[in-house]
Amino acid sequence: MTEFLYGHWAIMESLRAGRRTAEQLLITESVEEKGIPGEIIAAANERGIKINRVPRRIIDDLARGANHQNMALRVGPYPYADLETVLGLAVRRNEKPFILLLDLLKDPQNVGVLLRVADAVGVHGVILQDRRSVSITPAVVNASSGAVEHLHIVQVTNLVQTMRDLKEQDVWMIGLEIGPNVPPIDKTDLNMSLGLVLGSEGEGMRRLVRDTCDLLLSLPMRGSVASLNVATVGSVALYAAWQARGWEGWAHA
Amino acid sequence: MTEFLYGHWAIMESLRAGRRTAEQLLITESVEEKGIPGEIIAAANERGIKINRVPRRIIDDLARGANHQNMALRVGPYPYADLETVLGLAVRRNEKPFILLLDLLKDPQNVGVLLRVADAVGVHGVILQDRRSVSITPAVVNASSGAVEHLHIVQVTNLVQTMRDLKEQDVWMIGLEIGPNVPPIDKTDLNMSLGLVLGSEGEGMRRLVRDTCDLLLSLPMRGSVASLNVATVGSVALYAAWQARGWEGWAHA
Repeated sequence: MTEFLYGHWAIMESLRAGRRTAEQLLITESVEEKGIPGEIIAAANERGIKINRVPRRIIDDLARGANHQNMALRVGPYPYADLETVLGLAVRRNEKPFILLLDLLKDPQNVGVLLRVADAVGVHGVILQDRRSVSITPAVVNASSGAVEHLHIVQVTNLVQTMRDLKEQDVWMIGLEIGPNVPPIDKTDLNMSLGLVLGSEGEGMRRLVRDTCDLLLSLPMRGSVASLNVATVGSVALYAAWQARGWEGWAHA
Repeated sequence: MTEFLYGHWAIMESLRAGRRTAEQLLITESVEEKGIPGEIIAAANERGIKINRVPRRIIDDLARGANHQNMALRVGPYPYADLETVLGLAVRRNEKPFILLLDLLKDPQNVGVLLRVADAVGVHGVILQDRRSVSITPAVVNASSGAVEHLHIVQVTNLVQTMRDLKEQDVWMIGLEIGPNVPPIDKTDLNMSLGLVLGSEGEGMRRLVRDTCDLLLSLPMRGSVASLNVATVGSVALYAAWQARGWEGWAHA
């Protein structure tokens, strides 16, 4: 099964990561070979990928109306990882596991933003519940600016079972909640083997997922509008966790 | 000059805040009087606002193709504040000033997300450079989930001059940058009279804005994709600053 990635960074990072087969680069007639598009064309040429100029409406169709920036790359399926690979990366880096778990998130934009931040803070992997939640579609790749092409992402059929497996390997499950009876995120030292769990946009974590967490923490809020987007909550929490780890792995720390 | 707000939370928060005149609520024929739409209709009735059922395409036109959730509210212009009001709010709350400054941001979605977070952490006000940057349009109100209807937002013609004025009143200007030669955000105690300065999506702060900052801090990044959205950077920085203030004003702290 092939699919079409679109957007400059999605295409560029997919070529850079080199984890999927890339078969054909479609570009509109107007694209000039300079700037970022020029770099993408050069990278495609280097890898021996066929490049075709096509009318814009063809790429419009492939991207289903999304902002494709005049390019589409035909690629093989997204290479999902398994849990062993994720934990193996932590061992190889000599770091405590740092994992993001997403329960039934549905909005590709939110998931893309979260995965871009997950890459920026250096998580070892991301676990997604595989039914009724978003998978790594071209829209998610694009919303993540291509970051998912580098990340280890695991799809599981039973998130609660995976949480239990991780707990047995001494990875703490910390659920992020919004609510008055939950201690704020700075009340716990997050410099530990950590799985950060986020629930869906509307309803939060499912009951059993919530109950399987070792600890619930909240992001405080004051002000007039009593809610925040899950991508914002997750971004702040991922950074809080990485800060607790002393910006581990940051080249300039 | 009137304009049309759209989207449930934009309309609801505008009615709750009650700072603009609201003249007419347009709803499509399909809207039922229950749930959030029911609450909005009740709030409009309470305030004596005329309610009209109209064909969907009329609201489509008013919202220029955005996701309007079948409602539009005709309101007076956005009530911008002045700097004195912002500083006065800090005095009234007996808090050190906490201000967000945006230099030439252009994307309504980014600005809306930032303003929603600014409200959530309780900033006293937001300063916008008024030419070549976004103003508080219905798209921004919608992207902020209505949070801007409660915030003090100041438009200035010369951001650098406003920064100098604030510095004379002992408000520190901290610019957020992405770059290797800038210390990370946790290296400074942000529990001070603070103006947090963010630059535009592509180019960051303008040179003179940057030079007028007392201090530059960065958000560290590792991982493969060497950039983050300005809304993400700003959200994490706003939360870092509020955390440094001990979640001041949080009802459950």
